[in-house]
Amino acid sequence: MSRKKEETQGLKHNKKDFSEWYNELVQKAGLAEYAPVAGCMVIKPYGYAMWENIQAWFDMKIKATGHKNAYFPLFIPERFLKKEAKHFEGFMPEVAWVVEETEKGKERFALRPTSETIIYDSYSRWIRSWRDLPLLLNQWCNIVRWEQTATRLFLRTREFLWQEGHTAHTTEKEAEKEARMILDMYKELLETQLAIPVLAGEKTSKERFAGALRTYTLEALMPDGRALQMGTTHNLGQNFSKPFNIKFLDRDEKNRYVWQTSWGFSTRLIGALVMVHGDDKGLVLPPKLAPIQIVIIPIFTNKTRKQVLKEALKLKKELEKFLVELDDRKYTPGWKFNEWEMKGVPLRIEIGPKDIKKKQAVLVRRDNGIKKTIKQSKLEREVSKQLDDIQKSLLTKAKKFLTGSTVDAKNLAGLEKAINNKKMARTGWCGSQECEDSIQDKTAATIRLIPFKEKPKGKCMVCGSRAKHVVYVAKQY
Amino acid sequence: MSRKKEETQGLKHNKKDFSEWYNELVQKAGLAEYAPVAGCMVIKPYGYAMWENIQAWFDMKIKATGHKNAYFPLFIPERFLKKEAKHFEGFMPEVAWVVEETEKGKERFALRPTSETIIYDSYSRWIRSWRDLPLLLNQWCNIVRWEQTATRLFLRTREFLWQEGHTAHTTEKEAEKEARMILDMYKELLETQLAIPVLAGEKTSKERFAGALRTYTLEALMPDGRALQMGTTHNLGQNFSKPFNIKFLDRDEKNRYVWQTSWGFSTRLIGALVMVHGDDKGLVLPPKLAPIQIVIIPIFTNKTRKQVLKEALKLKKELEKFLVELDDRKYTPGWKFNEWEMKGVPLRIEIGPKDIKKKQAVLVRRDNGIKKTIKQSKLEREVSKQLDDIQKSLLTKAKKFLTGSTVDAKNLAGLEKAINNKKMARTGWCGSQECEDSIQDKTAATIRLIPFKEKPKGKCMVCGSRAKHVVYVAKQY
Repeated sequence: MSRKKEETQGLKHNKKDFSEWYNELVQKAGLAEYAPVAGCMVIKPYGYAMWENIQAWFDMKIKATGHKNAYFPLFIPERFLKKEAKHFEGFMPEVAWVVEETEKGKERFALRPTSETIIYDSYSRWIRSWRDLPLLLNQWCNIVRWEQTATRLFLRTREFLWQEGHTAHTTEKEAEKEARMILDMYKELLETQLAIPVLAGEKTSKERFAGALRTYTLEALMPDGRALQMGTTHNLGQNFSKPFNIKFLDRDEKNRYVWQTSWGFSTRLIGALVMVHGDDKGLVLPPKLAPIQIVIIPIFTNKTRKQVLKEALKLKKELEKFLVELDDRKYTPGWKFNEWEMKGVPLRIEIGPKDIKKKQAVLVRRDNGIKKTIKQSKLEREVSKQLDDIQKSLLTKAKKFLTGSTVDAKNLAGLEKAINNKKMARTGWCGSQECEDSIQDKTAATIRLIPFKEKPKGKCMVCGSRAKHVVYVAKQY
Repeated sequence: MSRKKEETQGLKHNKKDFSEWYNELVQKAGLAEYAPVAGCMVIKPYGYAMWENIQAWFDMKIKATGHKNAYFPLFIPERFLKKEAKHFEGFMPEVAWVVEETEKGKERFALRPTSETIIYDSYSRWIRSWRDLPLLLNQWCNIVRWEQTATRLFLRTREFLWQEGHTAHTTEKEAEKEARMILDMYKELLETQLAIPVLAGEKTSKERFAGALRTYTLEALMPDGRALQMGTTHNLGQNFSKPFNIKFLDRDEKNRYVWQTSWGFSTRLIGALVMVHGDDKGLVLPPKLAPIQIVIIPIFTNKTRKQVLKEALKLKKELEKFLVELDDRKYTPGWKFNEWEMKGVPLRIEIGPKDIKKKQAVLVRRDNGIKKTIKQSKLEREVSKQLDDIQKSLLTKAKKFLTGSTVDAKNLAGLEKAINNKKMARTGWCGSQECEDSIQDKTAATIRLIPFKEKPKGKCMVCGSRAKHVVYVAKQY
């Protein structure tokens, strides 16, 4: 079988031309496209199916830990946003407004850039006693941030989809535990489902969520050396419960303000999936999130068509516990190979007259291109094994990249070199805002996180005084 | 056991005070509340869980028939809405706008009141050949209609949730088949899951969806004699494919405009569920949609507490294939009975020391209050049987109401009498807009639908000429 690459197919850009490659791939693989409204995107069925898979996994996990879904309004009164000053400042520049003119005058409503304020207004009515706590809610919804910067599909759009969890607790300790538990859940989602390894840690106060006491983050490294924030959880302390007056009557009959968390990840994860695993031929999807896990391509001539299709259909039925598709369209096998490689389907099964005679089929892995001829009687077992192996291999490969792309930097010169070489730098930081600002001024990179378990040794890379923290520094998306 | 009705619990209004009863119940049962933004609602976890159950059922059904989900932008350029004149007129009064000021001037974006235009703009790029058809997409999203009329939770709010299906086909016949198939699917959802019987038929041209060729509808009758539109499907013909230029190259190498359908139902269904089945004590939920199907109430004194709770927990485990909850809070049994009756949980199981001794439990049905003492060994089977029976009984009861509330009217006087008596009228109509307008002028009721299978006999109730159609007339929500 020849694999003729047709002119109209395939990617014009190689992954080396990273930004162009990404834009072309997201569209050619049918994940998303630019909408006619500047800054917005259309999530196409193939991209949306991945979001549904991510949703299903996470929804099951949060429900198993006592969280419930609800739905709060898209519209937020301006006065709510203003109640927490830092929060308002943080989101103000990118808020889209709907203006209503009534007899009382004009009123502005923000399209939710995030829902802390509108949700906590409800919480102030719902929470009365310690018996109402913990209150563990989540919502799946659209979010609007009217940014002026260039659009990148899945990564930066004026509207995107996400989940946002909002919890209220009787104690600070419990809120802290929740923020960390959800971060662990995010990590599990990313590593076991998306096959994307992440660094876990805390944000500096400069990079913290507007209004949070502490922000925890998971950062993944993209092939262009930039870090992508994959999900964050916030210990909000009482920063919102005080202005929103969310009090509960405690067991000792005293009124106290609740302790809160919020947390979210978005459709941006699909962008990460494309960047981390994709190659010059297209997407490479981890089997656990792939909308189609196996594609069967029948190889036939006019003469053998009927027989081969019959056999291919039989194979499809045998594999129906997987997400399997039979491509019986009237295109050449080569054209189909290209198409399904572009779409990143983990396994391809080829079957032709020779294979039928020998009761076999040819199995081809998308991630490494390895071909294997398998007896049909062993196909189901082999497919299952290969899918598991692909899932693991993708994570291993991405881990290797992450480790190999992280270098130690001892000073600003070393940091600059690392950033210029498209690496992430591990280094020491004294904890001062001045030194943090210097990093950004000199390198356009920022402190992405302070890792949880690494103890600082050595000096601050900027001022040379004793390092208080280990930090990871990279350019960001 | 005494059933002490405590002052703070229960509904102030009886179902006879229908409108007040509805508003009170929706809030007291924890389904939804008014948001701080006028005209909007918060869907609380208990209400949202029912929406999730509706979603799960319907999503499974449409996927099994080849439909896929996608996501299109919230923002619609004004010029798109204007492309189909009737469509624009229909929605114009209730559109909320976001205004962007750029160098080129002001641009207005509508917050989607429905998504035909933004979706068909994509379709014009996606569809090239008959091979791309049928295109069968759906989206679950929020919708904004900035109405000035009074808010009613679930029934009339400025933002609500829905699904909207949008399909494109090669022939008119295929589009027609799709519109009718989805209507059947809606009917199945309503009757088998929500236990709400509906009348199925076509809308008059006056009541038709703005831009549709034909609109099909399912109408349910509420206890106050008003009809509620439960779901509609539209055969759009080529009314959108022409202005949006959605053409395909047919098998004969000719370019043709596609034939389209769109269809939707919304969170309004939850309002219908409340109205149709609820009673003076609260909600009555059909088991197939109930977030909690069974609640176990342990009956104990301080002395017997430990033993009873242990046994109750055992029961819970035995019933874990159902959605079962054990209420072990420190309230009186009477308080708990009221609470769970308000929430409409289909079955209550009471267990106390006497029951434990006799290896039995008491089963109480929410829909009819009937108590039954059951051997614990037979509990699972009995519960299963009772849940099935409740599901069926609710539908039967609602069907009886629908039949009993539909009367034949021969002329306008008869129609007025029927409407005043809170009935729906079945009558004859000549098909003229004048007579249709007269009905509304005289009775404030409208033709809700032209049923599919009923053949007209007799005369138009208004003008007395030969009836072209049987029609059902009622006031509407």
